[in-house]
Amino acid sequence: MIDDSTLTFEAHLESRAEAVEALLRQLLDQQHLLSGEIARPQQLLKAMRHGVLNGGKRLRPFLVLESARLFDGDPAAALRVAAALECVHCYSLIHDDLPSMDNDDLRRGQPTVHRAFDEATAILAGDSLLTFAFDIIADPATALDAKRRIDLVLELARAAGMGGMAGGQALDLEAATVVPDDDGIIRLQAMKTGALIRFGCEAGPILAGTPPSDRERLGEFGAAIGLAFQLADDMLDLTANTETMGKATGKDQSAGKATLVARHGIDWARRQLSGLVEQANALLEPYGESAERLKQAAGFVANRRN
Amino acid sequence: MIDDSTLTFEAHLESRAEAVEALLRQLLDQQHLLSGEIARPQQLLKAMRHGVLNGGKRLRPFLVLESARLFDGDPAAALRVAAALECVHCYSLIHDDLPSMDNDDLRRGQPTVHRAFDEATAILAGDSLLTFAFDIIADPATALDAKRRIDLVLELARAAGMGGMAGGQALDLEAATVVPDDDGIIRLQAMKTGALIRFGCEAGPILAGTPPSDRERLGEFGAAIGLAFQLADDMLDLTANTETMGKATGKDQSAGKATLVARHGIDWARRQLSGLVEQANALLEPYGESAERLKQAAGFVANRRN
Repeated sequence: MIDDSTLTFEAHLESRAEAVEALLRQLLDQQHLLSGEIARPQQLLKAMRHGVLNGGKRLRPFLVLESARLFDGDPAAALRVAAALECVHCYSLIHDDLPSMDNDDLRRGQPTVHRAFDEATAILAGDSLLTFAFDIIADPATALDAKRRIDLVLELARAAGMGGMAGGQALDLEAATVVPDDDGIIRLQAMKTGALIRFGCEAGPILAGTPPSDRERLGEFGAAIGLAFQLADDMLDLTANTETMGKATGKDQSAGKATLVARHGIDWARRQLSGLVEQANALLEPYGESAERLKQAAGFVANRRN
Repeated sequence: MIDDSTLTFEAHLESRAEAVEALLRQLLDQQHLLSGEIARPQQLLKAMRHGVLNGGKRLRPFLVLESARLFDGDPAAALRVAAALECVHCYSLIHDDLPSMDNDDLRRGQPTVHRAFDEATAILAGDSLLTFAFDIIADPATALDAKRRIDLVLELARAAGMGGMAGGQALDLEAATVVPDDDGIIRLQAMKTGALIRFGCEAGPILAGTPPSDRERLGEFGAAIGLAFQLADDMLDLTANTETMGKATGKDQSAGKATLVARHGIDWARRQLSGLVEQANALLEPYGESAERLKQAAGFVANRRN
């Protein structure tokens, strides 16, 4: 991994993304065999690779790697946890894109998994990526003691499950019939988008074995940038076009979906975003210069163009 | 939990099923809250309960409880692992029943989850149950040291993932276009159905912390009864009716699906079943009378009527 402090933030993000993608490729080429009785489900593996190795920005893995670095966590273990988190993120995209969910044809400029393969294969590819995430963390190759690995499994399961991402997605479905108020939208987004971003920021302290107060602080940082991420996403849905985003845009608006941006306007959203970035940065003050890249990540999340 | 050795096997199975169901109910009533920022996804929880609390035989949990008992594993921890395994099993049923997979309307005599709710909710309910399984095992409430919990997470992830159940399901999809040979069918079934049954039998030794040789032996026992389970299932698909089974039957036959029973006939299948039960029982000889109920389970799996 390149560790040159003169690199721009974008170059850092890219070099981290390459490292994560290389590990994901390697992990999906290995096979965890059940005794001798296994066959290789080739279509499934192709679909999983299609859903994961598609040039995402790898923001969540970046947060794992940087939050681990902040507390001198083992970089190789952090890279595996980062890859696991990306598997969970990509599984959620595969399932969200399905015809019965958001019914999207494009993702990162490529056909979605159910378009490139078929619905059944897309469902199984998502299921398998989610399961694989826990395999990756639990594997002794993630060279952390059992206590830290099980803590990571527990927090990832909670961030991804009914009280986190999947629950947020379910609330999003319910929001189509009962429109939530502002607090409802914020809760929904904290679960749907925020939970995995927050986990990314907490993963470093957990895997480095730092005191609870650091973990809490990084968790609050994660919550702030998670909210910023969703605000920026909602603004982009209103203002960007399909070409820039690599996926359909304007969908929330045409679906009459309640977003804070639609409700309060772009100017309000910009002010909120600045406030969230300031709040996020203030949380990292105690760590001084070592937290510089995480602070840059907060700005990046708020100002991204796609 | 009743522990009266004069009970019939069926009564034992039923009393274990009740204990597992009571714990599942309790676990789904609790909520693992992400700080204060959570809302309750009511529809999702209803769909998860519909998919899990539906009066199944709870064979896999039974195997966990009995294999744990054989090695004096902690009964409360075993019950939680049993509940987690049932969550994985039920998630797989919910997803397998979806229109793009087996397109089934009935499961255990009730509407399938996507029929009772909708497809999107069924996908999320399955996703959430799978995730919850890892939450349950990793939770310190599963009073085992971190090493045993992480071993269980790893083995469950492998049994459920691309090298296990989900991979077997993917091979089953592929089998619709390229018909597998006998070995191919056996591998597919060992993954699709066998892997979770095998995990159930290995979970006891793992959670009790027994030497690898016991775990291996129980794993082989699980593999044998997994194969028996699938043979019996394929026989029932040919001979039973929808009313007895609580789900559609004759589907494999009408889909021209390759099963060993279709290929070699009912008499051959009966002989195979006897052989597998004998083999399974022989594996348990070293444990004497304490293994009686697991032996009965082997017979039950081979001779079940629904």
